[in-house]
Amino acid sequence: MRRNRQPGTVPLAELYAPIREELEAGRLILEDELISDQGLISDLILHVEQFHGKLLRPALLLLVGKACGGLKPQHPVLAAVVELVHVATLVHDDVLDEADIRRRAATVNRLWGNERAVLMGDFLYSHAFHLCSSLESQFASRLVGQTAITVCEGEIMQVANRGNHELDEAEYMDIISRKTAALVEACCQLGARFADADEPTVRRMRTFGHSLGVAFQIVDDLLDVTGEEAEVGKSLGRDICEGELTLPLIHYLRNAMPAQRTHLLGILRSNDSQRHREVAKLLRDSESVAYAQSVAQEHVNLANEALATLPPSAARESLCAMADFVLLRRQ
Amino acid sequence: MRRNRQPGTVPLAELYAPIREELEAGRLILEDELISDQGLISDLILHVEQFHGKLLRPALLLLVGKACGGLKPQHPVLAAVVELVHVATLVHDDVLDEADIRRRAATVNRLWGNERAVLMGDFLYSHAFHLCSSLESQFASRLVGQTAITVCEGEIMQVANRGNHELDEAEYMDIISRKTAALVEACCQLGARFADADEPTVRRMRTFGHSLGVAFQIVDDLLDVTGEEAEVGKSLGRDICEGELTLPLIHYLRNAMPAQRTHLLGILRSNDSQRHREVAKLLRDSESVAYAQSVAQEHVNLANEALATLPPSAARESLCAMADFVLLRRQ
Repeated sequence: MRRNRQPGTVPLAELYAPIREELEAGRLILEDELISDQGLISDLILHVEQFHGKLLRPALLLLVGKACGGLKPQHPVLAAVVELVHVATLVHDDVLDEADIRRRAATVNRLWGNERAVLMGDFLYSHAFHLCSSLESQFASRLVGQTAITVCEGEIMQVANRGNHELDEAEYMDIISRKTAALVEACCQLGARFADADEPTVRRMRTFGHSLGVAFQIVDDLLDVTGEEAEVGKSLGRDICEGELTLPLIHYLRNAMPAQRTHLLGILRSNDSQRHREVAKLLRDSESVAYAQSVAQEHVNLANEALATLPPSAARESLCAMADFVLLRRQ
Repeated sequence: MRRNRQPGTVPLAELYAPIREELEAGRLILEDELISDQGLISDLILHVEQFHGKLLRPALLLLVGKACGGLKPQHPVLAAVVELVHVATLVHDDVLDEADIRRRAATVNRLWGNERAVLMGDFLYSHAFHLCSSLESQFASRLVGQTAITVCEGEIMQVANRGNHELDEAEYMDIISRKTAALVEACCQLGARFADADEPTVRRMRTFGHSLGVAFQIVDDLLDVTGEEAEVGKSLGRDICEGELTLPLIHYLRNAMPAQRTHLLGILRSNDSQRHREVAKLLRDSESVAYAQSVAQEHVNLANEALATLPPSAARESLCAMADFVLLRRQ
């Protein structure tokens, strides 16, 4: 029996219906790209395949292409490229975070050691660039290269700001724009550009991707504080344990009375492994969670506005619904 | 006369004389590519600059280009690209494996070191691909992507064979062909191809690069066993401590009497931190070091033969001398 539906719980398969074939084509291209004669590498690849979750980035690229004038043979190739980049960043994130759980599968670094996780991430990055440069034009290679640089910058900035309890909202937005929104923006730009959309449309699709990516990360950070581990499917409270401020905390620290602020900072600086639960309780009882949700909502609104001038189509409807999905997802 | 000097003692600066300007141009392109508005990233880049050593790969690319018909504006760009790929692999080599983290306390500094290495390596890889895709043709991007994949495969195979005392010479050659020779081969291929050399010449330059790369790695592995720490400038015995068999050990285990073999395996399996000194002594008293040197010499001969049909030039002489340099270097 299908679960009682709430807003945002439309199954992704339904949203992906307009691009089902091309998404499958992209998946096969990705598989073909990763074929290796080395047994160990095949094992690692099989393992990494568990990381494929919602295929949000390839789906966005394809839906934007479809909504902007139609898909070309390059689109499924690019869909595979952006997923490879995404999975490479996930594999390397796990080295950084020392994370134990990723999508309910043990992480590569836990199973094979940091060294192999680093090599596997490099392997995936290299395949992304290799596959991308099979296209005739250099445009995609150049954009994917620039995007990977921007993502690294965002991650380096994030690591550098660990334990910085003065991080403000503008700095936080800069970090998540780079580490998360840049790749989503690139997906939408590639989708539109390879569908031969005109420049104003390409710009609007970039805005759509950027806004959606920012909203996605804000919600992701919110789930890390307020989510339920069983539902979200990965270890929670990681940001807090790593000393990284996210939007609800930044809001709380900015608006709290001095005593509350001191209390929260005391919890953040403690070494208690359960401190994220205390923080979650404080935040839930404040307006800070609602504030972060409202900022995510604003970005979803911007995303939807950017879609307004596209001609009506099933693909456009899916893009609108994906914006809602990002906002209301529970995992 | 240069070729009559004691082999291997010609200073690299002299060998690089035919391409001095283009090598400097490549260095400036590399610096420009890495400029970042982020202070932390600038600091990291300064740190990474320590890794720049002999610039062997850019120099080979440029010398081959010069010897094969002349340098084009793309050559210094490609010289920067291959150096970026090389430095990225060095930075990621620095990442500790999980065993090391477990053995020592996982201090914040140590973790920060790991994270910095992973992100900085990704940053350098991304810049390599970004810079490469600034060229008009996709040829270099595709080749560099494929080469990076091959290097990863070699490194994954190496890690997978830790503690495998049955590793044979063919497997060892396969690993070093991928992890080291592939990039050197790509340098020479790019140098020749962008100088508009004909296909047979490009093929010979690939053979030159491959043979040189194999010889380089055999000598590197030999230095790890037989070198003097003060001379080589890095800690030695790492291969043995990490359970990685290299050519002299493979030869020794294949040719030793059963009792000698058992004795060596006992040393290799012990946890004695000084066991590489015992191994070095055993090997020096055997024919195994000489055997590995002879295999390196064979590859240098193949490399020099591949140069034979090039028209005489200062660049060709430097390439010959670099082959000797690889064989006789002490660091």
